[in-house]
Amino acid sequence: MGPILERISLPEDIKKLKPGELIALARELREYIITVASQNGGHLAPSLGVVELTLALHFVFEAPRDKIIWDVGHQAYAHKILTGRKKQFKTLRTFGGLSGFPKRDESPYDAFGVGHSSTSISAALGMALARDLKGEQFEVVAVIGDGALTGGMAFEALNHAGHLKKKLIVVVNDNEMSIAQNVGALSAYLSRIRTDPKYSRGKDELEALIKKIPHIGPTMVKIGERLKDSFKYLLVPGMLFEELGFTYLGPIDGHNIKEMIEVFSRAKTFTEPVVVHVITKKGKGYHLAEENPDGFHGVGKFYISTGEPVEVPRVSFTEIFGKALVELAQDRPEVVAITAAMPTGTGLNYFAQKYPERFYDVGIAEQHAVTLAAGMACEGLKPVVAIYSTFLQRSFDQIIHDVCLQNLPVVFAIDRAGIVGEDGPTHHGIFDLSYLRMIPNLTIMVPRNEDMLRKMLFTAINHPGPVALRYPRGAAVGVELTPYEQLPVGTAEVLKEGSDGVVIGVGRPLNYALKAAQKLENEGISLTVIDARFVKPLDYKLLEEIGSLHKPIITVEENVVAGGFGSAVNEYFAFKGIGTKVVNLGIADEFPPHGKVEEILNLYGLTEEKLYLKFREILSKL
Amino acid sequence: MGPILERISLPEDIKKLKPGELIALARELREYIITVASQNGGHLAPSLGVVELTLALHFVFEAPRDKIIWDVGHQAYAHKILTGRKKQFKTLRTFGGLSGFPKRDESPYDAFGVGHSSTSISAALGMALARDLKGEQFEVVAVIGDGALTGGMAFEALNHAGHLKKKLIVVVNDNEMSIAQNVGALSAYLSRIRTDPKYSRGKDELEALIKKIPHIGPTMVKIGERLKDSFKYLLVPGMLFEELGFTYLGPIDGHNIKEMIEVFSRAKTFTEPVVVHVITKKGKGYHLAEENPDGFHGVGKFYISTGEPVEVPRVSFTEIFGKALVELAQDRPEVVAITAAMPTGTGLNYFAQKYPERFYDVGIAEQHAVTLAAGMACEGLKPVVAIYSTFLQRSFDQIIHDVCLQNLPVVFAIDRAGIVGEDGPTHHGIFDLSYLRMIPNLTIMVPRNEDMLRKMLFTAINHPGPVALRYPRGAAVGVELTPYEQLPVGTAEVLKEGSDGVVIGVGRPLNYALKAAQKLENEGISLTVIDARFVKPLDYKLLEEIGSLHKPIITVEENVVAGGFGSAVNEYFAFKGIGTKVVNLGIADEFPPHGKVEEILNLYGLTEEKLYLKFREILSKL
Repeated sequence: MGPILERISLPEDIKKLKPGELIALARELREYIITVASQNGGHLAPSLGVVELTLALHFVFEAPRDKIIWDVGHQAYAHKILTGRKKQFKTLRTFGGLSGFPKRDESPYDAFGVGHSSTSISAALGMALARDLKGEQFEVVAVIGDGALTGGMAFEALNHAGHLKKKLIVVVNDNEMSIAQNVGALSAYLSRIRTDPKYSRGKDELEALIKKIPHIGPTMVKIGERLKDSFKYLLVPGMLFEELGFTYLGPIDGHNIKEMIEVFSRAKTFTEPVVVHVITKKGKGYHLAEENPDGFHGVGKFYISTGEPVEVPRVSFTEIFGKALVELAQDRPEVVAITAAMPTGTGLNYFAQKYPERFYDVGIAEQHAVTLAAGMACEGLKPVVAIYSTFLQRSFDQIIHDVCLQNLPVVFAIDRAGIVGEDGPTHHGIFDLSYLRMIPNLTIMVPRNEDMLRKMLFTAINHPGPVALRYPRGAAVGVELTPYEQLPVGTAEVLKEGSDGVVIGVGRPLNYALKAAQKLENEGISLTVIDARFVKPLDYKLLEEIGSLHKPIITVEENVVAGGFGSAVNEYFAFKGIGTKVVNLGIADEFPPHGKVEEILNLYGLTEEKLYLKFREILSKL
Repeated sequence: MGPILERISLPEDIKKLKPGELIALARELREYIITVASQNGGHLAPSLGVVELTLALHFVFEAPRDKIIWDVGHQAYAHKILTGRKKQFKTLRTFGGLSGFPKRDESPYDAFGVGHSSTSISAALGMALARDLKGEQFEVVAVIGDGALTGGMAFEALNHAGHLKKKLIVVVNDNEMSIAQNVGALSAYLSRIRTDPKYSRGKDELEALIKKIPHIGPTMVKIGERLKDSFKYLLVPGMLFEELGFTYLGPIDGHNIKEMIEVFSRAKTFTEPVVVHVITKKGKGYHLAEENPDGFHGVGKFYISTGEPVEVPRVSFTEIFGKALVELAQDRPEVVAITAAMPTGTGLNYFAQKYPERFYDVGIAEQHAVTLAAGMACEGLKPVVAIYSTFLQRSFDQIIHDVCLQNLPVVFAIDRAGIVGEDGPTHHGIFDLSYLRMIPNLTIMVPRNEDMLRKMLFTAINHPGPVALRYPRGAAVGVELTPYEQLPVGTAEVLKEGSDGVVIGVGRPLNYALKAAQKLENEGISLTVIDARFVKPLDYKLLEEIGSLHKPIITVEENVVAGGFGSAVNEYFAFKGIGTKVVNLGIADEFPPHGKVEEILNLYGLTEEKLYLKFREILSKL
């Protein structure tokens, strides 16, 4: 840890530093962030980009009295270090350690917990309104990336804030990236502000010009007024924000602490909403990340000198999906792929490379992604919408109202389903089986391994109605890949026969369940193990068969128990009047913490060892 | 039916009409719409506002080859009449009759089914992209209200469409209203376009002015370019749309068919996205609706001459809620109320009148509404967010990620839960118990009558964590109102004791269940009837008691069975290893059609008579 950082514990310590010391501190912060991220993994490039911005904010504002609200929150590492968590920062993203995101429980400086995009302006406006209603005095600052601005709810909030005209500061952290390269007209707009020479000129020249316009007599007053508006457009690059009711300040250099301190100090003096447009470089100060900000957006352990990962990642479900989709789209020109700013994270980068004309990155706009797909499906395309489980929650209404109500053949490829590990509670994909299962017309498949994922994708693409296919983050199981095959919809697969009870489940934990059952075999307990494969429709015939055995039935899933797969099994038995004893295993009714995937699965009894013990307990009791 | 309308069946019939005949046809359409709406109820004011717009669209475009996509869809009555459904229009909103909204199953002219707001541009863009990918030629037109434009997903779609630069026409139907008066900076912006005299001037004057600027020599070229941009701002009122990549045409008079035909014809010639800004008057042509467009937005049967309702509406759950909130907020300055463009529909109009400084209408922006509330709750306010069940689906992610994950004390007042009747499948609120029940930290209450609603609201406001309170559309039960009372969270209420089985349920159908049980009493079948009151947490103690009786247990709810209240009961019995027989009654796994509430409840066996028969059947079998 650098010598200046050694002396810093809280934001007030920053306020005493001289300009040169602030610059040196930025360097020390970067070193520390790179070191910890290289060991613990994390969102490196976003956090490196805002080091100076973070220093300037904490120099000017009085947190925690003033509220600093980070959008998405993956850029808050410097903020965490500077707000009393310098030592703990080494525990970043580890089980029981610091969260990788702002978290209200963790620190009073984390004014609003976050992990998803585009929420900051809404939350900030809520705090500003509460402040004014209670007659209190403090500043509220939302820091939002240009990528997050493409999310519709950010616009909803801008629209409302601009209307209300309350004191509020929105810092647009413009690094020209979502996670991948930005898309969208708004991004192009911001880019024009940044690059157009007209914006970098002073206004003197223009005022001189105005003076040269002759003969503005009484009849020309209206035109003069129009000209004033018109010149305002010349002089104020952020006219789009101005039209929405904000005063626009910028663009300013997000790596120039002095300039930012000046502008933030000025922003504080406004009594109405202000946008401060700050230009930063994602990955700043670590040349490998600057050159490849997408690759260093989120990283695992890596070697600082080379940027290479310490552990060579195994083939993931994501990669298997991405490559299978390329193969399946070969002879199917109607297959198109949609991502919401995650081309690499979803594995669609392979598709994008092979079929650029059939690939659509809509930006951080999950709602639009789904209804866009619905529109495409109306006209005969077969859209595959690849969105992480937790972010798909954003398009819940669109899945119901635009896709399933109209029974349109859209395929939802839902990555990061189940426990995601270090990103923690904002990112675990543990609700999808519940929130999708209730929707009429939707078929839901869950592969237990990568070979089944390929078969399911094949089946989904051939299916005439909407399909959800959900699979976990990280390494695939490591099974052999076999040819594509059409699975009869609503059929389960018996993996192992037994006579003492039945385990029926879906997805990753089924592999552990099978091993647990095999282990119990040695102890004289013989379990049938079934891969249900389809959460909807269920294999009703098989369920009736196992129900009529009147042996214990154990359901297993990597989803909350409430409303999930096991719940569907219960409902079917209730519907058929089969009064057999069922035990539902899955995630408990709480938000799981962050930590290694195995650590979290262990918490909820979904490892091989825990399942083994649980099965034994159940079989001995019933 | 008027003489011209008599001759019209399909859009091609319109194309032969002379200008004067089109104007007369508009009048005849209005008469017909008013007549049918006065008998069947419906969205009168929105549909009256777009009669000329609809005629102009069908005059210029070649539906169904060209796709006309209505946003929200409650304004499509003229469209329905003109596209082969003139006679059937009399069955509007009746069981088995025409839907009140565009519906793909109903007509090839209904290019996209809808009922929720802000989806049209996404769907239209999807169709346009499909068209281009397949090398086809047709026009795609989205018609979106200025209110719907405040919904974030409309912005997501504009941003994407402006970026892609594909041929697409967006008609902004600007009537200065959402359902109530519009809010938001965007609305103010549109209003500036409409009213600012500078926009109504020709450009000749300005061009003359440009010529007067002297001495634009080589060094002044840059300034000249800037001026061009600057004057573009003067000349092009829709600069905000232009900045997002659209060409802006307008504003034009939405009741002048000739002008619209000209502009739409011109819009067709563009190969890039175009916004046509059309000014209409909501309720146009029916003076009572023009004067009170909010009151005539959605109506029941009414007398055309007076506008008075045929049936005096009984006191509704909505009204009881609205008035109770006013009372409870009296001594609680921290209580604030939030609506997404539905002050009257949610009953918050009473609150708005009494406490305007604590009332927030955010526009059609459910996502923002919820996270705004989260921000307020962080600062010690107690926000009550009143949103219809079906629209709350839009803020599903915000409920999870911003409110419940942070365990913030926000109260969700969820109106229109259960079957809503004539508005049909886009509006039934039949999923909320399922999609809310899976969320950790959330308490869920369902009142069976208006007295319980008041007690639950009281309890919710006192509760330190997030609460969802859901109640149905329409008339309350008619019970006496008793003083406010704190309900112990997670406690059920036994309404009737019996010995042959147990009915346990929540909400409106519980009243029918109780009557059914009383009827069975006369036949010697004695049922216990329990109001669970809380869907989460359940009354576990009572459940164990009834489970241990080993009598049939019947769950009743006005929600899909999948993942709903009954499913929670099943899960608890599974968890405790209680192998009792349970039957789950509720809505089947399909999208219920439109019709009278009683007709739809009858379909799913949730009327008194059907429950009586079902209970008898279950009791005789088990």
